[in-house]
Amino acid sequence: MIVVLRPNVNETRQQQLVEWFKSMNLGVHISKGEVQTVLGLIGDTSKVDMELVESLDIVESAKRVSETFKCCNRKFHPEDTIVEIGDVKVGSGNFVMIAGPCSVESREQITSVAKSVKASGADMLRGGAFKPRTSPYDFQGLKGEGIELLLAAKEETGLPIVTEIMSAADLPLFEKVDVLQVGARNMQNFDLLKELGTINKPILLKRGLANTLKEMLMSVEYIMASGNERVILCERGIRTYSDYTRNTLDLSAVPMLHELTHLPVIVDPSHATGIARLVPSMSLAAAACGADGLIIEVHNDPLHALCDGAQSLRPEEYDALAKKVYAVREAIK
Amino acid sequence: MIVVLRPNVNETRQQQLVEWFKSMNLGVHISKGEVQTVLGLIGDTSKVDMELVESLDIVESAKRVSETFKCCNRKFHPEDTIVEIGDVKVGSGNFVMIAGPCSVESREQITSVAKSVKASGADMLRGGAFKPRTSPYDFQGLKGEGIELLLAAKEETGLPIVTEIMSAADLPLFEKVDVLQVGARNMQNFDLLKELGTINKPILLKRGLANTLKEMLMSVEYIMASGNERVILCERGIRTYSDYTRNTLDLSAVPMLHELTHLPVIVDPSHATGIARLVPSMSLAAAACGADGLIIEVHNDPLHALCDGAQSLRPEEYDALAKKVYAVREAIK
Amino acid sequence: MIVVLRPNVNETRQQQLVEWFKSMNLGVHISKGEVQTVLGLIGDTSKVDMELVESLDIVESAKRVSETFKCCNRKFHPEDTIVEIGDVKVGSGNFVMIAGPCSVESREQITSVAKSVKASGADMLRGGAFKPRTSPYDFQGLKGEGIELLLAAKEETGLPIVTEIMSAADLPLFEKVDVLQVGARNMQNFDLLKELGTINKPILLKRGLANTLKEMLMSVEYIMASGNERVILCERGIRTYSDYTRNTLDLSAVPMLHELTHLPVIVDPSHATGIARLVPSMSLAAAACGADGLIIEVHNDPLHALCDGAQSLRPEEYDALAKKVYAVREAIK
Amino acid sequence: MIVVLRPNVNETRQQQLVEWFKSMNLGVHISKGEVQTVLGLIGDTSKVDMELVESLDIVESAKRVSETFKCCNRKFHPEDTIVEIGDVKVGSGNFVMIAGPCSVESREQITSVAKSVKASGADMLRGGAFKPRTSPYDFQGLKGEGIELLLAAKEETGLPIVTEIMSAADLPLFEKVDVLQVGARNMQNFDLLKELGTINKPILLKRGLANTLKEMLMSVEYIMASGNERVILCERGIRTYSDYTRNTLDLSAVPMLHELTHLPVIVDPSHATGIARLVPSMSLAAAACGADGLIIEVHNDPLHALCDGAQSLRPEEYDALAKKVYAVREAIK
Repeated sequence: MIVVLRPNVNETRQQQLVEWFKSMNLGVHISKGEVQTVLGLIGDTSKVDMELVESLDIVESAKRVSETFKCCNRKFHPEDTIVEIGDVKVGSGNFVMIAGPCSVESREQITSVAKSVKASGADMLRGGAFKPRTSPYDFQGLKGEGIELLLAAKEETGLPIVTEIMSAADLPLFEKVDVLQVGARNMQNFDLLKELGTINKPILLKRGLANTLKEMLMSVEYIMASGNERVILCERGIRTYSDYTRNTLDLSAVPMLHELTHLPVIVDPSHATGIARLVPSMSLAAAACGADGLIIEVHNDPLHALCDGAQSLRPEEYDALAKKVYAVREAIK
Repeated sequence: MIVVLRPNVNETRQQQLVEWFKSMNLGVHISKGEVQTVLGLIGDTSKVDMELVESLDIVESAKRVSETFKCCNRKFHPEDTIVEIGDVKVGSGNFVMIAGPCSVESREQITSVAKSVKASGADMLRGGAFKPRTSPYDFQGLKGEGIELLLAAKEETGLPIVTEIMSAADLPLFEKVDVLQVGARNMQNFDLLKELGTINKPILLKRGLANTLKEMLMSVEYIMASGNERVILCERGIRTYSDYTRNTLDLSAVPMLHELTHLPVIVDPSHATGIARLVPSMSLAAAACGADGLIIEVHNDPLHALCDGAQSLRPEEYDALAKKVYAVREAIK
Repeated sequence: MIVVLRPNVNETRQQQLVEWFKSMNLGVHISKGEVQTVLGLIGDTSKVDMELVESLDIVESAKRVSETFKCCNRKFHPEDTIVEIGDVKVGSGNFVMIAGPCSVESREQITSVAKSVKASGADMLRGGAFKPRTSPYDFQGLKGEGIELLLAAKEETGLPIVTEIMSAADLPLFEKVDVLQVGARNMQNFDLLKELGTINKPILLKRGLANTLKEMLMSVEYIMASGNERVILCERGIRTYSDYTRNTLDLSAVPMLHELTHLPVIVDPSHATGIARLVPSMSLAAAACGADGLIIEVHNDPLHALCDGAQSLRPEEYDALAKKVYAVREAIK
Repeated sequence: MIVVLRPNVNETRQQQLVEWFKSMNLGVHISKGEVQTVLGLIGDTSKVDMELVESLDIVESAKRVSETFKCCNRKFHPEDTIVEIGDVKVGSGNFVMIAGPCSVESREQITSVAKSVKASGADMLRGGAFKPRTSPYDFQGLKGEGIELLLAAKEETGLPIVTEIMSAADLPLFEKVDVLQVGARNMQNFDLLKELGTINKPILLKRGLANTLKEMLMSVEYIMASGNERVILCERGIRTYSDYTRNTLDLSAVPMLHELTHLPVIVDPSHATGIARLVPSMSLAAAACGADGLIIEVHNDPLHALCDGAQSLRPEEYDALAKKVYAVREAIK
């Protein structure tokens, strides 16, 4: 870590700062410039609180040389991690297509969607049982019953299932779920992350609405440091001033995360845009820039289309899209 | 709710949409323009999912006429709500000063800070026992022990205490806490909010890093709809492109929230800026624009100042600031 | 336009508002709801200032039904526009590859890059002669001399040239330039846009750092309403809180702009990311989501690579990328 | 400047980089860490392009120790600058109230507003003659005639006038104007800034919609480096995801700019919020946090109020506000 002091810093205060760093078992190199002094800290600086240092009145700025994330850092683990879910592999060239409805509504609905996306080559089934909703007056999901219906659809089709968990208290209901999803709003629900670090199931961690990649990787550390190494990252759009899509899909996060971490990175174009007719173009873009998979909303009931249709494709649209996605994957090899 | 259809919409699809609205017991006024048709929905539209409607391919845009938040809406409750914590009143002209250290560290520390801020006129004591930290490797707070120390400081000074809760599972530890704080990262932890709606204690709800005022008010609804009407809102900075402060303090939220809701609104200048030397000016600004109170970080240990000092004032700085805050309050009466 | 009034609006003030709209030759439909009154304005509302209306104290909100951009609106011109630059066509399935160095530095440099990108199939040559720099102390470009060097490179290779104009006063120097680029910082330099509307050359308009798509289309209107209909739009990244790339490339703008306007839309992955190693993946993503072309920075001088290399590819990297871009274009057909 | 290299960098490439820095007359200190090497550059690094360095593939990150802005930097000029406009002083405890209509519309209008704001203690008159409008179809201002009307109002009231310039070509029309305003959209119109650096009039420079404080100070450098040292900065709101005000007023910019520069800093609450009823509270907040002045929109014509009233106060509202502003100024002394 490099700490740039303000010009004309009081000697005593500078010395106090140096002693404080030393008390944390850090070596301190002092280099005096013409105007300002720069401290170089040597040793394990991961425990040093950057924001605290940066806001001291004698400090002008601070900068980390080494990252604070360890378990998921590619520097210490150069090979791609492949997350396995039954026969499905994600990462290092293994591309996964996850599809299904926004919410699980009925046995007929989820099974029907599951069958059609499977016929189009999907590898896994998604569907919301616990639904985080901005309004308490909105539908909150079928909860435990929804998970039962997902499991029924899995039994009929063989597709592993992914569904969102909102609270560690619900963990017993997720015993047979294949992949547990942490939604964007819970990306920094640290108590939940710690619990998920103790179970033996892959976690699909979505990027928070306004979180940096570093923050996302620190949330991964909460899971991995507790022992669970099977984490899949998911870019799903960030909040910006731009107002014509629900969020702004930040696709450059895909190659950047691949540089920073060895974990697989997938993309959710449905939530990122919130507009079904933009999903195909954003899916192709995600495949083209090297994502390890896609998670796409698909609904089936033509009458329900009115309601569910928001950001969901119809099965035939999904089928057409999937063919193009595979073609793009071929093109970039 | 007003729904603007795209030009040249298929008649059958338009009719399906109208029927769907009617099936929700809504009246539908159809007004055909030269180019486009506009639907006016009459009745309780709070259950209608705006995003769903807006993303239908036959819909160009939709707009709510009435807000979906009810319990906290000033339209239905024009008088200011005053939240009472023992003898302390917040709202409707009652200004509250809440001060204390970022983290509770020791009995000596918390009691000493409590005494000094009380001497400067503070109404309540703050201090973190459960600490949400971006990194799992950072100090996570003294937890239950921290709460015990806060209660000891309360016993010595008589100041009611405010401290953050991160998980409903910890509720038993908060039995004697006066005000439970929900941090920015948990503003949309809906399971936690629902639980807090069932208890009989005031809740201090901080605005999420990238949340709109409407989303904040919907989170309040989660608490109030479950029965707890004592909620205090807190603006604490939002995430923007601007990079010289930790967050951007959005002070116009104060008068705007006062317009939208009857609940008290306070400001946290310490977390908003992350820089102690900006705290006084932002505190005065908050008082000047009508905030119902301030929550300010104050540390006491001169040695620890190095570490704790990030965004915290020393007691004598707090004392000088408090005097000016009261003077500004007088000036704007 | 739909105008939602606040509840319990004073009758006289409402009447004044209605009269004011009528004085602008608009029809006004008044529909009284249970709580609030809604006004529907009929006629040419493009002259009505939305922000003004929205901020009147008797108005709760306002919403346009029809867009204010006319010339570039796809509703009034459903077919794709093809912009022709000599033999090069852009739009409606015609994909353009524009490549070249950030700044023109010498005859040898620009000619050498021009030859190598031509050999890789590039359709046009880019290069900065007038350089908008954040700091007055940074290199501001070779200006007129730079344009001469670009023209020399054009003569040797036959590639049409694109270069940025910063001020209408410089127009005489651009007489032989094929396409004039307006940079992000000048997207709302309305005086410059008006001047460019009077000339007979295609304009490449880059999206401003924090501008919405509607604002971008209104800037296009400044050019088109003055008579110049040959405009190419360029997405080049927006400013967000995200800090690991210089800007955040907003690729969903591509399909969205295609929906809103008939003009071609290209993407600049070099400025969007500011990092050469992210350019290939973002170029492929842009091609996959339907962009009508790419504008990419390429440098040639291995020694200069140190300086120019920021966001620029080496010729051999460009060559490898171009092959993949064409393959992706094939895959999505 | 400190440059952190990536781990295991190729020796030859590292040497090339070092040589390149040396060729710019910089000293280079190389310090090898356990994992990574850090270069410290000594000398005048203001010519080094940070973004270029940061994006080299062998560089992990770079950080400036000294700022690139010189003329306006408080480090080199610790005393506050006072800008004088006739008898009016701005900065270093001299607080300026600037008021007037959004647009100059008629002699009667501008004179009437001028008289009433003067009676309320205003120091200067503002009014738009050249209007930057998002849409080419909106009113673009009375231009030269508007300036004539402003000068007439000045003659009647003695108030110096401030009005916006959009293009250097219009400079002759501004000969008798007291202060030239550069609007947010032109904050990085470098050709305009350079021209304004050559004239002998104070410049009021507004912060761009998405510009950092450093970028703002670099724009000041364009003016000051060309010889004009009388610059007043103006915070007027930034673009964020927040959607209930037109922009988000970033008041912490006021104390931060005071720390970085010796120039006066004023605040425009009218454009920042776009909502007249929020202007008083934001004005008081600005005064409380140490702004050197306010620029506030005031309209006079009760009939026109409908249109002009957007973000403008009526004269009696301005009068009441001004009294409170002065009271807050007293309170914080």
